[in-house]
Amino acid sequence: CSKEIEGVDKNIWVDFTQLAADYQVVNLGQGFPDFSPPSYIQEAFCKAVNGGCSMHQYTRAFGHPPLVSILAKFFGRVVGHEIDAFEDILVTVGAYQALFCTFQALVDEDDEVIIVEPFFDCYQPMVKMAGGKGVYVPLRPVSSVFSVADWVLSSEELASKFNPRTKAIVINTPNNPLGKVYKREELQVIADLCIKHDVVCISDEVYEWLTYDGAKHVKIASLPGMWERTVTIGSGGKSFSATGWKVGWAIGAGPIVKHLKTVHQNSVYHCATAAQEAVAQGFQREYELFGTPDSYFLQLPEMLHHKRKKLATCLESVGLQPVLPEGGYFMIADISSLNVDLNDPSTQDEPHDYRFVKWLIKEKGLATIPVSAFYSPEHRKDFENYIRFCFVKEDSTLNAAEDILRKWSDGK
Amino acid sequence: CSKEIEGVDKNIWVDFTQLAADYQVVNLGQGFPDFSPPSYIQEAFCKAVNGGCSMHQYTRAFGHPPLVSILAKFFGRVVGHEIDAFEDILVTVGAYQALFCTFQALVDEDDEVIIVEPFFDCYQPMVKMAGGKGVYVPLRPVSSVFSVADWVLSSEELASKFNPRTKAIVINTPNNPLGKVYKREELQVIADLCIKHDVVCISDEVYEWLTYDGAKHVKIASLPGMWERTVTIGSGGKSFSATGWKVGWAIGAGPIVKHLKTVHQNSVYHCATAAQEAVAQGFQREYELFGTPDSYFLQLPEMLHHKRKKLATCLESVGLQPVLPEGGYFMIADISSLNVDLNDPSTQDEPHDYRFVKWLIKEKGLATIPVSAFYSPEHRKDFENYIRFCFVKEDSTLNAAEDILRKWSDGK
Ligand SMILES: Cc1ncc(COP(=O)(O)O)c(C=O)c1O
Ligand SMILES: Cc1ncc(COP(=O)(O)O)c(C=O)c1O
Repeated sequence: CSKEIEGVDKNIWVDFTQLAADYQVVNLGQGFPDFSPPSYIQEAFCKAVNGGCSMHQYTRAFGHPPLVSILAKFFGRVVGHEIDAFEDILVTVGAYQALFCTFQALVDEDDEVIIVEPFFDCYQPMVKMAGGKGVYVPLRPVSSVFSVADWVLSSEELASKFNPRTKAIVINTPNNPLGKVYKREELQVIADLCIKHDVVCISDEVYEWLTYDGAKHVKIASLPGMWERTVTIGSGGKSFSATGWKVGWAIGAGPIVKHLKTVHQNSVYHCATAAQEAVAQGFQREYELFGTPDSYFLQLPEMLHHKRKKLATCLESVGLQPVLPEGGYFMIADISSLNVDLNDPSTQDEPHDYRFVKWLIKEKGLATIPVSAFYSPEHRKDFENYIRFCFVKEDSTLNAAEDILRKWSDGK
Repeated sequence: CSKEIEGVDKNIWVDFTQLAADYQVVNLGQGFPDFSPPSYIQEAFCKAVNGGCSMHQYTRAFGHPPLVSILAKFFGRVVGHEIDAFEDILVTVGAYQALFCTFQALVDEDDEVIIVEPFFDCYQPMVKMAGGKGVYVPLRPVSSVFSVADWVLSSEELASKFNPRTKAIVINTPNNPLGKVYKREELQVIADLCIKHDVVCISDEVYEWLTYDGAKHVKIASLPGMWERTVTIGSGGKSFSATGWKVGWAIGAGPIVKHLKTVHQNSVYHCATAAQEAVAQGFQREYELFGTPDSYFLQLPEMLHHKRKKLATCLESVGLQPVLPEGGYFMIADISSLNVDLNDPSTQDEPHDYRFVKWLIKEKGLATIPVSAFYSPEHRKDFENYIRFCFVKEDSTLNAAEDILRKWSDGK
């Protein structure tokens, strides 16, 4: 195989998704809803599929025109900067491919990319595939581990990571796996450093609508001087609870997005037409309903707010200490107080959280994800006592998980 | 921008598709049908979209299980070799992304890849992005330029291109843009060289069902000793006249496909679920009807056979000399006998065929594609007298093109 892919063949999702499938578990692992997208957007998809031959054929390579038009209009209003539908946007196969295009386009041999830990795991191999080097800076709990708002970047530590080789920094807000939502002041610190060192900010905002308890999502691209140097990444799948549609986008200044387009045209070229049409219709509706109770971007966090509470209460009641998230799909919980006999010899060389998660799948039929997978090898050791739960699930699924946990807890 | 993408930013489709859109032409340019997929597969898509929540969420990263299962069964029969659904197949975002994954996975810095000319244009930048070097070997007309069967590889010339740095050879049968269908003996020559020099064959077979006048498509992977060293690439879009669905695949021996999966998991990860489900249903039906008159894989070439004739007759009648294809979507025609005053100063530095195509779009409202775009810079100069027509179009579109050509011819 080629050198670029040496050392990037391991993948947490491949391993744990297969295991979850093999054991037919209650699945709070991977980040996807087990419910359907809102009916209006399902109908839009179905209409597109029945909508005549052009819906079945190639559309514009860098984004279906109705989709880039409404994304420009919608996000132009949110970010407070005019967005050119045809210059400043690239539609991709999910946010995942947007991230890939961004790293490939911007990162060169030996460039450094600052990655905030814990991070969505693909940032690391993607930087590596582009020839770059990940430089890690952790969010650390300042007082209470169990309040996510207390997990912050140290400004000094962050500043110390910037140097002339730094090409970009990746942030993710609301964050996966922690559920942190960056405050404006925190983003300003990052923005100041980006401007000072002429660094691009890659801002993964796939969970942008999902904030709880009054936390507010702020786009770093909206801060002064940042539009020109930010690539903001979004996901139709996460926005509309339709992760299987795989429609995502990167938005930024034309001179940057141009390079992403070059990667796209040499790797994927076209994205699926009908799904783009449906997402366009979804955004059209959300544009009109923005801020009103009928907006799905308000209804979904409202719904998830309850699910989050439900899962947290359940975890606490069985002695697991959850870190209540301010946003996103996920909640992590501390497992260090649990005294489980992980005597499976087949996993004995693995980190504690990996072993625990495998045990929970095989012995209890509940799938979660080990949190050390979201850390660099250097820091993995310090975070082997957390596991991640996805709570974007039907209440019946959450109830089934609760049953499993309760039975186990009662049996102890 | 990063070095990998230097020199791969130009793209014929971006330029000419935009031009065609700007001038609202009759479009025989890009390779997509302007008719719908067969109704049974449209219905399968619609059913999938209405089929409950799992159809809207992520499926297996390397291919939706029902799709890889039927692809293994279907192509196992065709290729005469057992195919492992989970080891030997990677589902991708169209054949395009399968090509990308293959080049990225197999080609390393300074590796050579032999590319047969004329070639589907993306092979060149994809090899370059992977750090490799394209080595070109042209199909040359041995006696008549106008019989595509006469365009062949010289065995000696081909053999001379293999050396210890050669990592792979890419072939495309039926070929785009020429419409050549490689005979078994021609493939055997290539196979022998691949085996002798331990080289991988990347076989782009997206038009595999589309052969005319008794030409037979042969899979090079079916030749002795070739399964182990061939990656065969296919397209649901081209198979079912649904190019906008973007479902493709790479099939080959597990130890090779493993590396493609690594690229995929770090660049796209999931492909769209419902479209994969629909393509799975399509192949299930085709598996049952294989070789019968109800099979779409027989009906489509039957339909295209007539369209091909229709276009050829029309081109001849206006003094353009077509090269009648044995397979695929396209027909090239010689424009050297045409005396057109291409005095547009804005295009004066461009190749003759580029200028001609632009003139035809702007002045006559008919879009085609210049054939020199399918050649390496070294050989481009020798092939500036052909343009490519796509005939996978409604008869009404072909009639409209005919009207344009006839009026022009009459006016001369
Ligand atoms: C932080 C983050 N970014 C990007 C993605 C990928 O999103 P998509 O499904 O749109 O490719 C995910 C999916 O889990 C994610 O959690
Ligand atoms: C020879 C060849 N290979 C691959 C492709 C890409 O196919 P898909 O649309 O499945 O990505 C095309 C499309 O025109 C083609 O002509």
